[in-house]
Amino acid sequence: MTGKMDLTREHKQFGGMNRFYTHESKACNGPMNFAVYLPPAAVGLSPSRKFPVLYWLSGLTCTEEIFMTEGQVQAYASQHEVIIIVPDTSPRRTGIPGEDDRYDLGSGASFYVDATTPKWKPHYQMDTYITQELREVVESELPIDQNQRGIFGHSMGGHGALVLGLRNPELYHSISAFAPIGAPMKAPWGILAFSEYLGTDQKAWEGYDACHLLRRVSASGNLKNLAPLLVDQGSDDEFFEKELFTEDLKSAIKETGYPGKVRGQGGYDHSYFFISSFMEEHILFHLKNFQSAAKA
Amino acid sequence: MTGKMDLTREHKQFGGMNRFYTHESKACNGPMNFAVYLPPAAVGLSPSRKFPVLYWLSGLTCTEEIFMTEGQVQAYASQHEVIIIVPDTSPRRTGIPGEDDRYDLGSGASFYVDATTPKWKPHYQMDTYITQELREVVESELPIDQNQRGIFGHSMGGHGALVLGLRNPELYHSISAFAPIGAPMKAPWGILAFSEYLGTDQKAWEGYDACHLLRRVSASGNLKNLAPLLVDQGSDDEFFEKELFTEDLKSAIKETGYPGKVRGQGGYDHSYFFISSFMEEHILFHLKNFQSAAKA
Repeated sequence: MTGKMDLTREHKQFGGMNRFYTHESKACNGPMNFAVYLPPAAVGLSPSRKFPVLYWLSGLTCTEEIFMTEGQVQAYASQHEVIIIVPDTSPRRTGIPGEDDRYDLGSGASFYVDATTPKWKPHYQMDTYITQELREVVESELPIDQNQRGIFGHSMGGHGALVLGLRNPELYHSISAFAPIGAPMKAPWGILAFSEYLGTDQKAWEGYDACHLLRRVSASGNLKNLAPLLVDQGSDDEFFEKELFTEDLKSAIKETGYPGKVRGQGGYDHSYFFISSFMEEHILFHLKNFQSAAKA
Repeated sequence: MTGKMDLTREHKQFGGMNRFYTHESKACNGPMNFAVYLPPAAVGLSPSRKFPVLYWLSGLTCTEEIFMTEGQVQAYASQHEVIIIVPDTSPRRTGIPGEDDRYDLGSGASFYVDATTPKWKPHYQMDTYITQELREVVESELPIDQNQRGIFGHSMGGHGALVLGLRNPELYHSISAFAPIGAPMKAPWGILAFSEYLGTDQKAWEGYDACHLLRRVSASGNLKNLAPLLVDQGSDDEFFEKELFTEDLKSAIKETGYPGKVRGQGGYDHSYFFISSFMEEHILFHLKNFQSAAKA
């Protein structure tokens, strides 16, 4: 017991360590799980230096486990010496009626927002949890360099990485996503989740829609020191047309002049086979951004 | 429908392709599943050349899927241009009474033997299936170089790779294993499986025990052109003492002078986190052996 985060299991990999933790969350009013990968030099009680950190947000139905088993991040995190933090995708067993009834709402489907509706508000505060509480807990316990912090994710978690990154340029110095829900206000998944978590007033949804946030940043006139953005989208992604709208994201980036890029990847689908194929490129993208920020 | 192997799904990864197939097996008297990874140059109908092949045998409870999602072989198979073939770990839904009752017997637990007992014999012919039927099917359908063929596996599948490799030096030119059941005749898992599949006469078990096979090869006096053997064993493997007996394997290799090596890997457990950490070294080990054999 550290009082802050309790280790439940660990597995050595590529010389470093995967660790699975549970802790009591104030923001989500209950226990939350997360996973960590520490590169070899960061394992142990008193590492002599601090390491860049990447927060990974997973997609619908995932827990913190699948990215650790299928994402193939560890070989690159070991080699390039990056710490990886992977939260669960929602609170669990909160007692909210129907929380486990659908794969696209409630458990495994937080959409990384701070809920405002009476039903979900008491536990579904994932924005605050990830950007504040979890960040403060792991960054006080682990040898993390707070000046080299990035966020990335997949599908619902790609949406989460985009919106939490764009909303908090002072916190995240680099953003990337694999097949994100680029325009959730147009997507059936996003419309359902935002209606439930944020209520029916669509004005309230805009703060969690990547395309709106890009225009908001652009309208603010402050286009300096923005976190660079990279998105990869497979051409054979089964959710591309109905749910993802990465073309809208591409248009919003072009229209606003935000420092971002959406790449098409021919023949890849929505799975971790796709994610793992471009994992090293994303790691290198974030590290390059950290180095550029340090020089600026 | 090729008439031989039917594609059920495919996923592009690292430029190549993971393919999942089903086919009717004569040896096992029913449908069998297997997976394939083709490196980029081997995808398509008429590749211009043939590629080395590695057969992977998985452990207890696995299907052909987990190695494809968690083994992390594809990055290296893509880079080094190797075809990977991954059979399921047993027949399924055969109707044999109790086939799904235990994790360590029946479905997911074939131990890669040709069963001789009346109960299991009609379907559990995994030795014949892997060394003959599946090999002939995939090697007639895919651009495989039959002179560069290796076999490897994990736990029960590590045992499978060792015994099928040692029994068939004319077929397999290189053998490796992660945390194999090195002396199944001493292991509770092996004793149960061999009693059920091969009957109570322990003489009949020796042909599927790696330590016995090493001594048999040595006694034959033919120590030329043997397939080199590499074994990795994690020091924190939860099954090491009770089930694996990799120390016995090490002793048998030393005693017989077989060209093999058992390496201890400090801090690693029995999981795919361990396997993936040494995957590239195993791929390179097999490729080096293929090159040495070509020169000899």
